[in-house]
Amino acid sequence: MSAQEQQIEGEPESKTRLRLWLRLLKFSRGIESELRENLRKEFSSTLPRFDVMAALNRNRDGMKMSAISNALMVSNGNVTGIVDRLVSEGFVIRETVPGDRRAMRVRLTAPGQAEFDQQAAAHEAWIDGLLKSFSAENAKEMIKCLEDAGLNETGQGPT
Amino acid sequence: MSAQEQQIEGEPESKTRLRLWLRLLKFSRGIESELRENLRKEFSSTLPRFDVMAALNRNRDGMKMSAISNALMVSNGNVTGIVDRLVSEGFVIRETVPGDRRAMRVRLTAPGQAEFDQQAAAHEAWIDGLLKSFSAENAKEMIKCLEDAGLNETGQGPT
Repeated sequence: MSAQEQQIEGEPESKTRLRLWLRLLKFSRGIESELRENLRKEFSSTLPRFDVMAALNRNRDGMKMSAISNALMVSNGNVTGIVDRLVSEGFVIRETVPGDRRAMRVRLTAPGQAEFDQQAAAHEAWIDGLLKSFSAENAKEMIKCLEDAGLNETGQGPT
Repeated sequence: MSAQEQQIEGEPESKTRLRLWLRLLKFSRGIESELRENLRKEFSSTLPRFDVMAALNRNRDGMKMSAISNALMVSNGNVTGIVDRLVSEGFVIRETVPGDRRAMRVRLTAPGQAEFDQQAAAHEAWIDGLLKSFSAENAKEMIKCLEDAGLNETGQGPT
């Protein structure tokens, strides 16, 4: 038994949960850093750009700028700057909302959709490689714990 | 069976791992945001400040500034600015390394150590509450998966 294992024997639950949190944090930082590097090398892109396109991909009818900001999982980056750049590259268009000339929506163009589909397939393959130590069964168990934790965290009961 | 569960039946492993990653990311963002809020409200402090003190707590003999930057888990913040502030508050001192007058080390003072001990105890209790959906057994299993994943990620074999 290693010194670390001896130390862990009989540790209070709060210490185990603290170790889990520190490990989770280190792990997710590591994965994010791999994703940034891969997006840069293979698509000359960034994580905030990928996140904006992913949000637009989930909302094919378009989104208001404020909705995009709310939807970003990874980074808050400069949404306006990112969208401006995507527009200038032809991946995204801005259009008025019918019946409300002051409201603007942003959506993926056909070339933007094709570009995102490529990036999303690569992203899924990267994650599959980086998380290969998780069997499907392990992964599902962990998703369940994380979902339960999420409910506790916000104080919402199960629906 | 819900529509989501039907969709998940028979999904490829890569999709399960992708769901796990998105869930992990959302979870760790949520926890970080709670920690930031708690540190601000209860200690008028920040996550980068807490991280710097935690690194110094693990290295009681002091650390060079470059070592502090490397050790930060959560944020890269402005280490120089954070240390300057901690020095002005009396929580940290800068001292020369014996035998090398050009090298400076930073370490916690006694009041800094006492302040950190308080914050660390609160931090552990917050994490214990936020992760209460994880039993000690679940947590240990998950730590194991994350450690294995970490090894794959860096390409290092077990030591």
